[in-house]
Amino acid sequence: MNKNRLEAFSDGVIAIIITIMVLELKIPHNPTWQSYLDVYPIFISYALSFVLLGLYWSSHHHLFETVSKVNNKILWLNMLTLFCHSLIPFATASMGENSFASIPVAIYAAVLFIANVSYLILVNGLRSLHSSDSSFHKAYKGHKIIYTSMAVNASAAIVSLIGFPKTAFLLIALKAVMWFIPNHRIGSYKTGEDRTSK
Amino acid sequence: MNKNRLEAFSDGVIAIIITIMVLELKIPHNPTWQSYLDVYPIFISYALSFVLLGLYWSSHHHLFETVSKVNNKILWLNMLTLFCHSLIPFATASMGENSFASIPVAIYAAVLFIANVSYLILVNGLRSLHSSDSSFHKAYKGHKIIYTSMAVNASAAIVSLIGFPKTAFLLIALKAVMWFIPNHRIGSYKTGEDRTSK
Amino acid sequence: MNKNRLEAFSDGVIAIIITIMVLELKIPHNPTWQSYLDVYPIFISYALSFVLLGLYWSSHHHLFETVSKVNNKILWLNMLTLFCHSLIPFATASMGENSFASIPVAIYAAVLFIANVSYLILVNGLRSLHSSDSSFHKAYKGHKIIYTSMAVNASAAIVSLIGFPKTAFLLIALKAVMWFIPNHRIGSYKTGEDRTSK
Amino acid sequence: MNKNRLEAFSDGVIAIIITIMVLELKIPHNPTWQSYLDVYPIFISYALSFVLLGLYWSSHHHLFETVSKVNNKILWLNMLTLFCHSLIPFATASMGENSFASIPVAIYAAVLFIANVSYLILVNGLRSLHSSDSSFHKAYKGHKIIYTSMAVNASAAIVSLIGFPKTAFLLIALKAVMWFIPNHRIGSYKTGEDRTSK
Repeated sequence: MNKNRLEAFSDGVIAIIITIMVLELKIPHNPTWQSYLDVYPIFISYALSFVLLGLYWSSHHHLFETVSKVNNKILWLNMLTLFCHSLIPFATASMGENSFASIPVAIYAAVLFIANVSYLILVNGLRSLHSSDSSFHKAYKGHKIIYTSMAVNASAAIVSLIGFPKTAFLLIALKAVMWFIPNHRIGSYKTGEDRTSK
Repeated sequence: MNKNRLEAFSDGVIAIIITIMVLELKIPHNPTWQSYLDVYPIFISYALSFVLLGLYWSSHHHLFETVSKVNNKILWLNMLTLFCHSLIPFATASMGENSFASIPVAIYAAVLFIANVSYLILVNGLRSLHSSDSSFHKAYKGHKIIYTSMAVNASAAIVSLIGFPKTAFLLIALKAVMWFIPNHRIGSYKTGEDRTSK
Repeated sequence: MNKNRLEAFSDGVIAIIITIMVLELKIPHNPTWQSYLDVYPIFISYALSFVLLGLYWSSHHHLFETVSKVNNKILWLNMLTLFCHSLIPFATASMGENSFASIPVAIYAAVLFIANVSYLILVNGLRSLHSSDSSFHKAYKGHKIIYTSMAVNASAAIVSLIGFPKTAFLLIALKAVMWFIPNHRIGSYKTGEDRTSK
Repeated sequence: MNKNRLEAFSDGVIAIIITIMVLELKIPHNPTWQSYLDVYPIFISYALSFVLLGLYWSSHHHLFETVSKVNNKILWLNMLTLFCHSLIPFATASMGENSFASIPVAIYAAVLFIANVSYLILVNGLRSLHSSDSSFHKAYKGHKIIYTSMAVNASAAIVSLIGFPKTAFLLIALKAVMWFIPNHRIGSYKTGEDRTSK
């Protein structure tokens, strides 16, 4: 029950985070094609963040599936991940508004990196709470993904700062798209059904 | 359980999408009747989008009623429909703000068309997941509605671009109103109760 | 189950409606007492609407407690009440921003009146769905409240238009406060527990 | 059941309150480090309010865990706490926007104080509803925390008004951080599991 209310609250916060980003799409006040095209940097940024927050929700969902208990520490580590992810709309909008300038893209990548770190801390909190022969320990294999994600986001921040912000953006986008390629081997986001069918 | 959290998350996102549109109703800073009347294009646009998102929620609700399993692919196809529908507030506001100008209405219709396509993909994903003799296959008869919707939205986009944006808007509104006419024959949005009583 | 998802979706929408009103409280950019005092018309309007939407949620909650079935018609009558209530943030903000001018207060009262009507239609829809000896019919006694509310809101609209907007506002506020007076006799909003303890 | 819908509605409102604060983070329109640094007062204010609202949610969660019944009075006392906490985004944003000026910080502290009072009233309402030998009475030991919180917030308001707003802010932040120090002795926010393991 405890766990369920934690999941429900997280779902609520993630649903709001993912949706309020759409408020940043500036309404064109000039009914021309050009004014709609001008929105594209914000639109692409929104699309990427939607996917990344979707991955966060999905992985949060699978993480808690095999969790058998939560305590106050987990509640707050979860709050920390929600806080870090709640900065994504800000980072997304400032990246889009400034048309992928160097510093905003680096800050976007840094926010994603920090969000990864917070998620890693949550995962480790859950690991130390569950005994090593629990179903949680057996089911969880997501470290590889988090480390990959952290490496990519850190690299993207650097790549952007040395002057290639669009390459940095593409790097992050590519990493996100990778999860949709069938049969990639690092998929801890899979449902039980997927796992058994392989 | 999996299915339930997917439904709950979708409900949350749809509830937010449907409600944040109201933030686009510009507050009149002049307490005259005229300044309230001036809001009418945004108001009508909001009303139509509310109904269309209500139809989406309702049909999503009925779609998942007979679903017996979901996997990661369904999770992401569902995310795709949420993403496409999350563009409706933007399209709605830009249509209202620009008083039903040609391009904004066409873009509105195009967003609705894309949302239909994403929903069709989700439905087909669920169909290929369930065996052909499952209760899902037996219960689901909604293709006709989606194809009708797609045809109307595509036509509306064209009608708007050739210079009749208000006709295009009426076309979309008429299609929406049709679902409320009793005994129309293409009703897959009905509840089980309705179905048995006929 | 059907009923539960309807309730959950309604709760989500009402929670968002009630909360986004707070976004209309304009942030003072001048750190003086005066600039905070200047927010008071918006603040009072917000407080009243919060109570009224709380009453709506509470009465919606009690209405559905004894409901044993819902169908597609109920789903849409429910959507209609949500739509009408979703206009309250707009009416609230415009009343506050225009410091209780005549027309905005009348429009606020009119929106509340329309919301009452939509709720009455929902109630009647539920009544005609349930047989007259169902627990729903026995438990439901809320018509008196709705009619009272409609009368007060209609009067308030007229009182505001003939030049007494602040009196109109007080009228609506008084009606809301009445529900909090213990032992008032028209309480259909009570929980089962309250009812049995009397 | 009653209790569950109350919890779910509260969770929804708290999730929205905690998340819409992020909309106040002004998007820098100038892609320089300086323009990001300029956001820091709003950012720090947001971070503190996130923690405080997290504490509210967490304590609300634990409060209702042992509650066995709710009535209409509790429903409205709960609404009152939601209303008071819904003012936090406004107080937070005005404190951040005005860079910790004296009056905005005092108002922030006052809003937190009022929120504490509303929570105390809710707790006392629940206490008088439950018999003194109920599990609710046995489990609940949170008064000390509320009184501490009230004292700190009242002091902070005064400290800010006599000219030390930043000290006032630190005072509130310190109080919040205290809950995260392991083995502090006034922890009513602990889960059942924590309690038994000590």
